[in-house]
Amino acid sequence: MSISMPDKALIEQFKAIIGPAHALTDPADIEPYLTENRGLYRGNTSLVLKPASTEEVAAIMKLASQTKTPVVPAAGRTGHVGGHVPRESGTDIVVSLERMDKIRRIDATANYIIADGGAILADVQKAADGIDRLFPLSLGSEGSCRIGGNLATNAGGTAVLAYGNMRNLCLGLEVVLPTGEIWNGLRSLKKDNTGYDLRDLFIGAEGTLGIITGAVLKLFPKPRGHQVAFAATSSPEQALAFFNLASNRCASALTGFEIMARMAFDFTIKHTDGARDPLTAKYPWYTLVDVSTSDSQDAADAMMQSLLEDAFEQGVVEDAVIAKSQSEIDELWHMRNTMSEAQKPEGGSIKHDVSVPVSSVPAFLHEADAAVMKAVPDARICAFGHIGDGNIHYNISQPKGADKAAFLARWGEVNKIVHAIVLSHGGSISAEHGIGRLKRDELADIREPIEIDLMQRIKQAFDPEGIMNPDKVLKSRTTLKDDRS
Amino acid sequence: MSISMPDKALIEQFKAIIGPAHALTDPADIEPYLTENRGLYRGNTSLVLKPASTEEVAAIMKLASQTKTPVVPAAGRTGHVGGHVPRESGTDIVVSLERMDKIRRIDATANYIIADGGAILADVQKAADGIDRLFPLSLGSEGSCRIGGNLATNAGGTAVLAYGNMRNLCLGLEVVLPTGEIWNGLRSLKKDNTGYDLRDLFIGAEGTLGIITGAVLKLFPKPRGHQVAFAATSSPEQALAFFNLASNRCASALTGFEIMARMAFDFTIKHTDGARDPLTAKYPWYTLVDVSTSDSQDAADAMMQSLLEDAFEQGVVEDAVIAKSQSEIDELWHMRNTMSEAQKPEGGSIKHDVSVPVSSVPAFLHEADAAVMKAVPDARICAFGHIGDGNIHYNISQPKGADKAAFLARWGEVNKIVHAIVLSHGGSISAEHGIGRLKRDELADIREPIEIDLMQRIKQAFDPEGIMNPDKVLKSRTTLKDDRS
Repeated sequence: MSISMPDKALIEQFKAIIGPAHALTDPADIEPYLTENRGLYRGNTSLVLKPASTEEVAAIMKLASQTKTPVVPAAGRTGHVGGHVPRESGTDIVVSLERMDKIRRIDATANYIIADGGAILADVQKAADGIDRLFPLSLGSEGSCRIGGNLATNAGGTAVLAYGNMRNLCLGLEVVLPTGEIWNGLRSLKKDNTGYDLRDLFIGAEGTLGIITGAVLKLFPKPRGHQVAFAATSSPEQALAFFNLASNRCASALTGFEIMARMAFDFTIKHTDGARDPLTAKYPWYTLVDVSTSDSQDAADAMMQSLLEDAFEQGVVEDAVIAKSQSEIDELWHMRNTMSEAQKPEGGSIKHDVSVPVSSVPAFLHEADAAVMKAVPDARICAFGHIGDGNIHYNISQPKGADKAAFLARWGEVNKIVHAIVLSHGGSISAEHGIGRLKRDELADIREPIEIDLMQRIKQAFDPEGIMNPDKVLKSRTTLKDDRS
Repeated sequence: MSISMPDKALIEQFKAIIGPAHALTDPADIEPYLTENRGLYRGNTSLVLKPASTEEVAAIMKLASQTKTPVVPAAGRTGHVGGHVPRESGTDIVVSLERMDKIRRIDATANYIIADGGAILADVQKAADGIDRLFPLSLGSEGSCRIGGNLATNAGGTAVLAYGNMRNLCLGLEVVLPTGEIWNGLRSLKKDNTGYDLRDLFIGAEGTLGIITGAVLKLFPKPRGHQVAFAATSSPEQALAFFNLASNRCASALTGFEIMARMAFDFTIKHTDGARDPLTAKYPWYTLVDVSTSDSQDAADAMMQSLLEDAFEQGVVEDAVIAKSQSEIDELWHMRNTMSEAQKPEGGSIKHDVSVPVSSVPAFLHEADAAVMKAVPDARICAFGHIGDGNIHYNISQPKGADKAAFLARWGEVNKIVHAIVLSHGGSISAEHGIGRLKRDELADIREPIEIDLMQRIKQAFDPEGIMNPDKVLKSRTTLKDDRS
């Protein structure tokens, strides 16, 4: 291993760029950079660099390029697919954006904010709030995830229905290329048809084409009215019918529509502090509906009231409550946001972040449930997610009392079963978490060769040395060569 | 010229792919494919092919690739930057998608439509309307422009404020690559984070990376309420303040906000059939405000009424009328939509399709007006456009009685003056029309070399033979070589 790691002289050169105080070489300091939340990967590195400016990132990449040193960019390190973990070989150095966490500029008239790649999402939300604007990206990890990572993974979250994912929330980017050159695309224009869309190429590329060091993000007027309801349905079909009703009635005022299987909800009630079932009876499926109105709170209340009246009349909900206060709104969303966390005490969980066309969600759920229960009898399926986006977090908790390791060892097998059903509906095996390492080989398997080939050509064009977050999203050419031998 | 044109044998090979009835070789038949609406370019070709299927397009590109025959894709041929015109050399053949004009599928539950690249925009709008859905892209040329061209140029139009441009309206693409391979990216997913964003790379590439033969487009619930107002303001500053008020009050219900200089409006009143000034006095600037509500017509009426009351109270409008019927709504929009056309009887017009950050629109207009009037005294400035997108069609009609040719000969000089001001505000020299041939050299001048270099690398990676709409957007390598010699 040591043979391929950067040697001491090179490490000193890298350290000199940013000052030794901001370079980590002690294994204890480096430890947090080697892992990810799900415990799927553990990498190695001898150096973590924490630059303070775009110019420092550029100087690091220039040296990396000259010395063919692989670089793994890290932001909030909350990703679910191992994208920010260095390879086990120890050949990679880590460049963390955590010191580049500033809001560079915020403009209420032009409705944009310019943030460093290392700015924490919650800080961007707060800055927007401070000038009476909304930055709508909202995720469970918003207190620690960072804008550069949100962009690199094209983050989704709970507000995609009305505001789109990170791609739709970004106007411009600043990117340090693998060569150390800086692309200044920090434009704040709503319309700009001047050549190829480099911005969207970097967004979602998971740090394999460059390091996003800054971004111009859109801000929105803050809604004046906000209301949330929690409604039970008897089936996914009924939940979908309810969504369609809500979508038609509320149009862009429908700012969230989540679905939760009873099992996921039960785990949340059991394990999340303060969570309680707002309904008196038990139902197989639940939905959480969020509306935001531009004019007034009364309008939001009236809209939700009238939506639920129609929903009962049309028989698309079984029971429902409307939040009576902001704290009830917060409680309902808190249950949804902690749903993944609430699975942990129940043992191992095999996870899927899939999407299908919205109209196919019920069929997907029935088919997947049947196939999974056949393969893993007594599995506890905790499906939940953004039905309005067709995006289901199809998580499977181990059978009660089963051996965790043995259950998790079936991750690949179960993925295959679920993803086959997803693909039969024209769906996606990664709706919002990205590819990283976790789904890299599977992506190559399921996509037509021409698509992978086009991606490889882009990778080669932007990163000819193959040093930029190698072996994520796509197999690096070196790895490809190894495979062949 | 003849030496570089495809020879007879090759022409026969191309004709055989689609059948001779669908290949044009007669100069009279070919004529319409050689020109564009503004009369800026006139190209040459010996062959126009009208394939009927994606497979035929693929076979054409395969042969073109093998024989290094340059191909210019054509859709509705309504572009403003010469992107669909073959080069003067006669070396290029034209592939027209006009026979691929079908709606392949439409789904009201999943809210999407799959259309051929040659489908006419108005037909897509009608198909959506037929299932009680909205396809929001709306342009002056919607009766003849085609989806493939709308995508290739990332078309904008009047509904961008609420629904985004073509990029935001597209879920998936089918593209024939320069090599003749087919990329089937016809996905209908709202969320799909699986590798590099190829879709957005083809969108806006103006046919230089491949031919878009099919697309999955988003549909929306049809608003139940719609209202339009026409309001006069004393200055661009006042118009911007009015826009900000409207944006804050109406949020996503604000579906259009246009600004028009008095001169542009006067020409329209004079030259557009049925156009009339809805206000009694004359004002220097006008705005057209469009709101759409999901719930009811009453809600739209009330929203507009209350918006205008606030606007008068805050002193951000001078006078205003609200449409009293659908036909009055249509009349108001017709005036706006014919504004460019209405300049024609007034002689030559030097055009700019620029954008600046929304908050910079007033400063841009003042500075540009001063600079243009200094350079061309008595020029008649017909500025109008989408103030909410920061996108102004800054068109300059010749002085009364001036020589048209002499005036138009100053196109480049005047562009330079206006674009310098645009760039000083961090703006774009092509907000929605694209680059084509018209702005290709200027793009290379104003962008940092690294940006043009990244685009050239993508072009090279996708089109190594350089046969795909060469010399549009970017100079082809051959042309670059010629320049040097």
